[in-house]
Amino acid sequence: MHRYFAQLSFKGTRYHGWQIQPNAVSVQETVEKALSTILREKISVVGAGRTDTGVHAPFFVLHFDTSEEIRDCKKLVFRLNSFLPPDIAIQKIWPVPEDAHARFSAVSRTYHYYITTEKNPFQTGTAFYYREKPDVAKMNEAAEILFEYDDFTSFSRLHTDVKTNLCKIYQAEWLLEGKMLVFKIKADRFLRNMVRAIVGTLLEVGKGKLSLNDFRKIIEKKNRGAAGASAPAHGLFLANIEYPEELKVPGSIN
Amino acid sequence: MHRYFAQLSFKGTRYHGWQIQPNAVSVQETVEKALSTILREKISVVGAGRTDTGVHAPFFVLHFDTSEEIRDCKKLVFRLNSFLPPDIAIQKIWPVPEDAHARFSAVSRTYHYYITTEKNPFQTGTAFYYREKPDVAKMNEAAEILFEYDDFTSFSRLHTDVKTNLCKIYQAEWLLEGKMLVFKIKADRFLRNMVRAIVGTLLEVGKGKLSLNDFRKIIEKKNRGAAGASAPAHGLFLANIEYPEELKVPGSIN
Repeated sequence: MHRYFAQLSFKGTRYHGWQIQPNAVSVQETVEKALSTILREKISVVGAGRTDTGVHAPFFVLHFDTSEEIRDCKKLVFRLNSFLPPDIAIQKIWPVPEDAHARFSAVSRTYHYYITTEKNPFQTGTAFYYREKPDVAKMNEAAEILFEYDDFTSFSRLHTDVKTNLCKIYQAEWLLEGKMLVFKIKADRFLRNMVRAIVGTLLEVGKGKLSLNDFRKIIEKKNRGAAGASAPAHGLFLANIEYPEELKVPGSIN
Repeated sequence: MHRYFAQLSFKGTRYHGWQIQPNAVSVQETVEKALSTILREKISVVGAGRTDTGVHAPFFVLHFDTSEEIRDCKKLVFRLNSFLPPDIAIQKIWPVPEDAHARFSAVSRTYHYYITTEKNPFQTGTAFYYREKPDVAKMNEAAEILFEYDDFTSFSRLHTDVKTNLCKIYQAEWLLEGKMLVFKIKADRFLRNMVRAIVGTLLEVGKGKLSLNDFRKIIEKKNRGAAGASAPAHGLFLANIEYPEELKVPGSIN
């Protein structure tokens, strides 16, 4: 058995998220079909995490196993990219130890959430068009409160099967990139729906509907019903996933 | 009669170009319908130029006339943006003298052509995915030759109705922007299909199929059959249009 990591990127618009599900096209299924066809072997892939319908991933990692060693990983990347649709691209494939795992070996994830406050024909599916001008300084004050906590039940989807709602936040800040407002958040792990629920609630702080103290109380309630509405999926990007040094591709900057 | 300029942007993917035509949706028709509905008057708009099917315009200007003065241009912009589809956005509307003309008053146009040499899921309709790595330095040497000429018949579509094929080139260069290769060209005017024909021919220089001298000979032949194939429409962006000082919107940087 030979295990490989693959780094890929996909635009989520056409897909019902990463994970395979009946009666809907997923990125996982699309990549498995391409790999299985080219390698002439039934290949199952394991992703670094789920992404919801419409969420994008400029940086994603999966692992898969083959019965025979892959002679030329670069050639496989080239053939996969010819086979896959334009909205999924493979950047690299490299061998890893048999116990390396795209999901469980990851030590951090980084998400970016893009907001445009001006109508932009070139960002219709890749940024949330928010018609009001939120108070970004206030939203950054609220974002700093996140560092004081590790239980984010209030920002998780109800009835998920995870055993713990504890997360360690490494970064949480709003930045201006050109005319775009971007929320960047990095943590060891994320609960389902967590980034979109945090962004939606921070936007309510930004328009003055919630105070900083309200925001703190929402976290402390540990109750999903307390938080604001989730921001829409199409503004969310999985931007990076970090692994221990020994699993990185040679020459990678990540 | 009151004349107005409007600055707008559109993503060309869904449209059969700017200009109204039977049995196809154009940007012009879409904007005319929106203006006519909101102003409750049949409005015709005149664009700064044609764009072909699939070509994008982050910067476009049109003019239109109304029988009554528009009291609040900002409010009209807001209402138009609510009415128009997500891939067309109005930035500004401002009054101009009655003889101002979106097309004939323009003193220059600037086009950008975007090429990605790596598969990029986020640029599928907004950059030309070119699998080879062209020699950019050589393409820039060829681009400089353009400044020596003003008759670009070789890069124009056959059987067009324009009376002259003379253009004055102000800028013509290839630049690297991140991982994108961008050709920027500015001239007083452009012939139909000219930028795409120039880009397609320069790419042949970039992959060594044409020499610098071949490129020069193509221009001198003044024969469209001599040039290379046109680069695809979806990489082309109308990026700027300049007008005399007195027609500019107050506070505009253009």
